[in-house]
Amino acid sequence: MDANVTDKRYKQFCHFKQQCLSKEDLSRKGSIDEPIRPLVELLNSNQYYYTTSTCSGRISLIEKPHDNAAVKKGGNFLLNSHEQIEFEPFYRLIRSFVEKDDSNTCLWLKFEPYIMHVQCYDLEKAHSLLNAATRSGCRNSGITLGKNDKFLVAVRSTSSMEIPLHCGDRFMLDENYLMFVCDESNRRLRENLSRLESFMNEVEQTLKGQVNSMAT
Amino acid sequence: MDANVTDKRYKQFCHFKQQCLSKEDLSRKGSIDEPIRPLVELLNSNQYYYTTSTCSGRISLIEKPHDNAAVKKGGNFLLNSHEQIEFEPFYRLIRSFVEKDDSNTCLWLKFEPYIMHVQCYDLEKAHSLLNAATRSGCRNSGITLGKNDKFLVAVRSTSSMEIPLHCGDRFMLDENYLMFVCDESNRRLRENLSRLESFMNEVEQTLKGQVNSMAT
Repeated sequence: MDANVTDKRYKQFCHFKQQCLSKEDLSRKGSIDEPIRPLVELLNSNQYYYTTSTCSGRISLIEKPHDNAAVKKGGNFLLNSHEQIEFEPFYRLIRSFVEKDDSNTCLWLKFEPYIMHVQCYDLEKAHSLLNAATRSGCRNSGITLGKNDKFLVAVRSTSSMEIPLHCGDRFMLDENYLMFVCDESNRRLRENLSRLESFMNEVEQTLKGQVNSMAT
Repeated sequence: MDANVTDKRYKQFCHFKQQCLSKEDLSRKGSIDEPIRPLVELLNSNQYYYTTSTCSGRISLIEKPHDNAAVKKGGNFLLNSHEQIEFEPFYRLIRSFVEKDDSNTCLWLKFEPYIMHVQCYDLEKAHSLLNAATRSGCRNSGITLGKNDKFLVAVRSTSSMEIPLHCGDRFMLDENYLMFVCDESNRRLRENLSRLESFMNEVEQTLKGQVNSMAT
């Protein structure tokens, strides 16, 4: 590629990066989840990458309309935890939902693995990061293209889980089942954190490899 | 791009396409799911695309080891339906699993939306297809890159569901709950088919647009 074009492109990338990283955090929580912070900092310290949104994985209890249980937006979060949960407070939240007895909404338990969106300088850099994600088991990752020739890598894995816990008088669940799904959510969160660590290692190797290949 | 390079690249793409489409279908079922067949045929009839694997969406009952419920491979399928299911046979399958009383394995219900992998001639063609997928609500879609400069689009949506139904003596579920999750799986499958139809329309528009832009 023409050196002037590359230079212009790189300046534009740096401009977008600076703009993005100086913005207010618009997430529900308003800050980066601690378990994913080292990876976010590692990527943002590299000149060819910056993260636009991340979640380290979470266990949530969501209230959804009765007739549209799969609705993605507008659900009301009763619990939104990025750490393992204890059964007692989890059970109390469910009990208080059940006792409210609102037959128009249902309660769902959801586990979502970590997700990360990373802007990359060019297709080659996006490809390296995507390979690192795939090697660490994030099989649902992929590149999407934005305006201004932007390459975004979405890092996603496949361990999500979604379970109905209450829906008017349609069914009753016993405490043992709730205990089981609580344990299973915690198990998936632990597994998720070990996958995140493995991705962190892969990214470190990838970035080192890029520096070495530039030096030779 | 140099015309000779483009020509060589196109010949190579056609070679891979022919090779892929003449292969035996290696899926569990051994054939293309009917609801997705028109879309597969539409894409394969276009010179710039070919599908490598597809599933129109499915409801399954999977037996998994007790201590590793999230294992992706090696699960034993008791049910694998690409169509809506009826409660009676679904309930009988679960009952017979419960009566077998094998405390080393657990039974999970899984709903997976349609998925499609499409090889694309170049990044531009991959981008158009990805846009069509995103417009039809498949928010987890993305491009991955293979050897020989291959661009693969994976079309994925987000409506998957995974629910534990039996796990030794850890819990008991009543018939009403099983009826609810059976209904919910069918509801998601219907919604999935309407999303597939919407993707089919988007692909038709995209391919027409490509022909028109070549004509001008």
